[in-house]
This record gives sequence, C-alpha cells and structure tokens, in this order.
Amino acid sequence: MTIVKNTCWTIQERPIGREVRESDFALEERAVRDLEDGDILLKARMFGFDPTQKSWMSNMAGYAAPTQIGDIMPGRAIAEVVESRDPAFAPGDRVRGHLGWQMHPVVRAAQLEKISPGVNDENALSILGSSGRTAYFGLVHVGMPRPGDVLLVSGAAGAIGSIVGQLGKIAGCRVIGIAGTQEKCDWIVNELGFDGAINYRTDDVAAQLDALCPDGIDIFFDNVGGAILDLALARISYGARVVICGGISNYERDMSKPEDLPGGPKNYLRLTIQNATMKGYLVHYFSDYNKVADARLERWVSEGRLSHRQDIQTGFENIPATFQRIFKGLNIGKQLLRV
Amino acid sequence: MTIVKNTCWTIQERPIGREVRESDFALEERAVRDLEDGDILLKARMFGFDPTQKSWMSNMAGYAAPTQIGDIMPGRAIAEVVESRDPAFAPGDRVRGHLGWQMHPVVRAAQLEKISPGVNDENALSILGSSGRTAYFGLVHVGMPRPGDVLLVSGAAGAIGSIVGQLGKIAGCRVIGIAGTQEKCDWIVNELGFDGAINYRTDDVAAQLDALCPDGIDIFFDNVGGAILDLALARISYGARVVICGGISNYERDMSKPEDLPGGPKNYLRLTIQNATMKGYLVHYFSDYNKVADARLERWVSEGRLSHRQDIQTGFENIPATFQRIFKGLNIGKQLLRV
Repeated sequence: MTIVKNTCWTIQERPIGREVRESDFALEERAVRDLEDGDILLKARMFGFDPTQKSWMSNMAGYAAPTQIGDIMPGRAIAEVVESRDPAFAPGDRVRGHLGWQMHPVVRAAQLEKISPGVNDENALSILGSSGRTAYFGLVHVGMPRPGDVLLVSGAAGAIGSIVGQLGKIAGCRVIGIAGTQEKCDWIVNELGFDGAINYRTDDVAAQLDALCPDGIDIFFDNVGGAILDLALARISYGARVVICGGISNYERDMSKPEDLPGGPKNYLRLTIQNATMKGYLVHYFSDYNKVADARLERWVSEGRLSHRQDIQTGFENIPATFQRIFKGLNIGKQLLRV
Repeated sequence: MTIVKNTCWTIQERPIGREVRESDFALEERAVRDLEDGDILLKARMFGFDPTQKSWMSNMAGYAAPTQIGDIMPGRAIAEVVESRDPAFAPGDRVRGHLGWQMHPVVRAAQLEKISPGVNDENALSILGSSGRTAYFGLVHVGMPRPGDVLLVSGAAGAIGSIVGQLGKIAGCRVIGIAGTQEKCDWIVNELGFDGAINYRTDDVAAQLDALCPDGIDIFFDNVGGAILDLALARISYGARVVICGGISNYERDMSKPEDLPGGPKNYLRLTIQNATMKGYLVHYFSDYNKVADARLERWVSEGRLSHRQDIQTGFENIPATFQRIFKGLNIGKQLLRV
C-alpha cells in the first residue's frame, strides 16, 4: 500500500445553539489501516455541503449515526479508487458516498456508488446527486404534482429548491418561488422558468402570495419553516400537500430542547379545514427508486430542461470555511469544494 | 299549516378570544314561512353539541357557511316531520340534519337524513351520528391502522376519542388514551378496553408516554393540540400518521389573528426524520362512505363492541347553558339535550 497517511478534519466542538466556527474542527493526520477483502482505498476529489451536516455533527438529526468528539466530520464526497480489494472496483474508478472530510478514506465496497463516465464530479454531487434526488423524490413522490397545480417553493434559489421548481414546470405546474435577493428572484424567473418570485426580504410576502396564488397553493415545498410556513398554510387549497424538506430557520437551535425551539406552524389547523397533508421525508427512504430518478434527471439535464448553479471553492484546507458559507448565504447554487 | 310560530336561539355576540356566555344568545319567536314544493316542516326532538360550533358562530371555522349577528345558531339536531311537501318524507318520520337551534325549522328535503327505526335519537346524534362517523373516517381512512400499531388518542374520554380508541382495538391496535380525570382514565381502560391511560392533569405525560409506548407511536389521533401534540411528535415511529381531528386548546383563540394564536407544534420537523404524515380532515369529506361507516358502527354497537356515554340535559330553554358545559368539561360523554 503506497499511501499510509490520511489527512482529515475532525469534530472538536458541537455548534449547538450557535453558528458553526472554524475552531469546531481540527486538521489531523491519521494512519491508513490495512485493507481487508471488500475494502477500497480512495483519494478524495470533491466535497459537497448541506445545511443538515450541522445537525449531524451535533447529533441533532435523529437519523444519522451518532458522532463523537474527535470523529472525522461526516459528509458526502466524490473520490477516485487508489486500491481495491473488491472485484467490482478498479483503480481510477470514480465513486460517491458518505466518505467524510478526509483525503484517503478506506471504506467497504457496499458503501460506494460508481459514477458514470458521462457525469462530472460537480453534477454527481448536486443536480445528479443528493440534491437532484431530494428534489425529485420530494416533489414527485411526496408532493404528487398534478398538471395545473400551483406549486410554491421556499429556498427557491437553493440547491434543492431551484430543481424542485423546474421539476414542477416539467410536471405542468404553475410555480412561484420565494428567495432572499433580487438577483436570486431574477434568476429563477428569467433563467429557470418560474412563473413568479417573491423576495422575502423586501416584498410584503402575504400580499404577494395573495396576488400570485389567488386560487390558493396546491403544493408548498418548504425548505425554511418559520413565518413563511405559516403564511403558506394560511393559503393552502383543498387537498393541498405541504412537503417538509427542511427547516433551515431551525438549524441554529438545539433540537434536543423543544422548549427552546422557535414556535412551530401556528396555522397547522388549516390542515383540518382544507383536508390537507403535511409530510416529511428523507432522500434515502426512496433509494429503491434511485435508478429511475437518476435516469430522468440525467435526461432532463442533457435536454437542457434542468439548469443549476454550483459554487466551487478549492483546497482541502478550506473545508471548514467553505462549510460556513452556506449558513452565511454566501453560496450561489450548490456549495462544493474541489481538492 | 297548523304551526305558525318558531321559537329559536339567535346569535347576539361572537365569543372571540373568550369563553361562551349565555348572553351571546337570545330566545326569539319567528314566523314559520309558507311551505313550497320540496320543503319539510319539522319539530325538534333532540340537539347535539360540539366544541367546533363555537367557531361556527364566530366565523372562525373557515369551512362552515358564515353566520350573521341575529341568525339562528347553527347546530345538529334530530326532528320529527310535521308536514311534508316532498314524497320521500311523511309526518312522523324522524330526521337528522344541520337544523340549528330552533323548534320548528322549515328545510329542503335534500338537507335531511332519515333515521332508521332501530336507532334512537341519542345514538343518532352520537355514536351512530357525526361523532361515530368522525371517529371512523379519522381513524380508518386517515390514520390507516394496521394490526400491531400503537395508537395514542388525546381527548380519549370524549365523544370522538372514546370511539376512536375502541375502533383501534377492533383494528388490532394497542391503544393508549390521554384524559383529564382519574374517573375518565378508569372508564376507558376498565370499560372500553384501552390498554393504558394517562391523566394529563396529574401524570408526568412524557414519562408515561415513554413507559407505555416504548417503541414509539404509530398513530396519534389528536383532538387537543398544544403541549400534548409536541410530546407525541417527539415519540412518533417511522412512517407514523398524525391525525388532526381538532384542537380544542385553540378554540378559545381568535383564529383570524395568527399572531395571537398559541405556538404550533414545535416538533413538526420530526415528520421529516420519521417519514411521517400529519393529516387534517373534516367528516363530510368522506360522505360518499357514510353508508359503509354507518353499517359497521351499527353492527359493532349491536354486538357490544362499541360502548359510549351520553350526557342528556332537557328543555329547549336550557340550550345555551348546555352548550357551555362542553367548554367547562362538565359533560361525561356526548353532550345532548332533549326538548
């Protein structure tokens, strides 16, 4: 084995009830363990970042494996096979997985997905990766769009929301997006084909929702929570579906202390009056359908029907600073880092 | 037409943000209008009371026809046909409908349901009426119980909750109820066959839920909202269904002012982690299935598999005082009034 040292970022402190700091992480070198049958030694190529990683490092997610102080920070990445003890993988293959923030992970073959030669690293970590699948399953399997539906998307210029809106257009919906800058609003309307956009920082959101969705909201795809969720619930149509994809407005809070959480959706009794459903999901619940979703997303990307943006930083040493960008709203599009 | 005067209770004030008072209503006499083809003149026999009527008189429900000050108070009742201008109804027939608080309503035939001779007035307004149907559709069509499921019911000794728990037992569930007195807890366990009960006034609800539902809650049937909804969300199992039947803890509030509402369910992001659904409904959404539900409920009642209790007050003049009983928690079982 030629590689014996593994550079990695470890968790030093949990950012509970506060923002993420660079000092929450430490750069360390660890020994690469000897390979056993079924093991693959990798070299990292690119990392992808999601807000929910903050809940993983704080053990707040409730679904991810618990992390310990000193553990390698979990996260999705693309890597190249250096050495393989499994017949399905050969040196040079590109793979994707929950590899963590490390340069030379050794993982079991079963934990890896091979990347098709036609898919580049950045797409494999965004529109043709977890963001694309999260958007597809959330809208198609959970939201169940019907042609003519009015689809409202919060976080509409984000990695997931921007894809959800475009998938809504493919499904024949009228799509309204909520975003936080004029530039983002212009982008989703002029380049992604949304039918309308609301700037939640400068617009009267309630008045704009009344103007843009006069017959109510059939699907609300929510990445944000908080006040916008209540405004949407106040306007859901009969039989509406409220898809809870995330709640970034809650991710700075300590979810183990419900009494400290911000108020939940005050308007939840609108579900009763409107015969409506609020449904949560995580992308891996639908993994049996990954092949179907991937094939459709690849086709729509190749046909030019799905556009997206990526914010690609560089340098393994810049990983913590890059992770902070998504909480500061500095990224435009999916946040990635090339080694 | 022999009857020319109709005694009725009209709405004088809306109880917005406060409790219901007797002075919110006035006893009046109105003329009975002449019958046209398709009209039925009735004589009231029995009235049924629900917490949600408070939202009807305040125009807070969002689904009921708006009421005006001076209107006859809306409500469900059983009456007897006095005179009929429709071939489907004959004098002496007993009928059920949204007749309002009046002694001699004139209504269109299409608004009435005939009561089978084998069903008495009190059952027709409770277990074999809207309470039974609300329980049946909410548990069976919305909650979708599977044998082995753990079903938690709030308001478990109430008109709807007590039926939901028994239907859960018929469906093979393990059923835990939450109620507000030791007498109610004893009743649902010892007489209705619930597997456990929690007294929310005296027990540590969180600790009791942990003890009684160690593997989580598969269905939470909620009549209450507030803190109990959050405690239940914290314990839902993977794929759980949260059925929002009502939120009596909210009915004293002004729902037209969301900013004044109590906080919604803070733990709603548990839906995401647990791939769970929160679903609202109203009983009339399922009216196409009324015959199926009625036949099943009648069979289970006749087989002694469904028990219930009724609190029957008397005297048309006592209607407002009887309505207040349900908000003071004075009724044991479905609140009714015999003329």
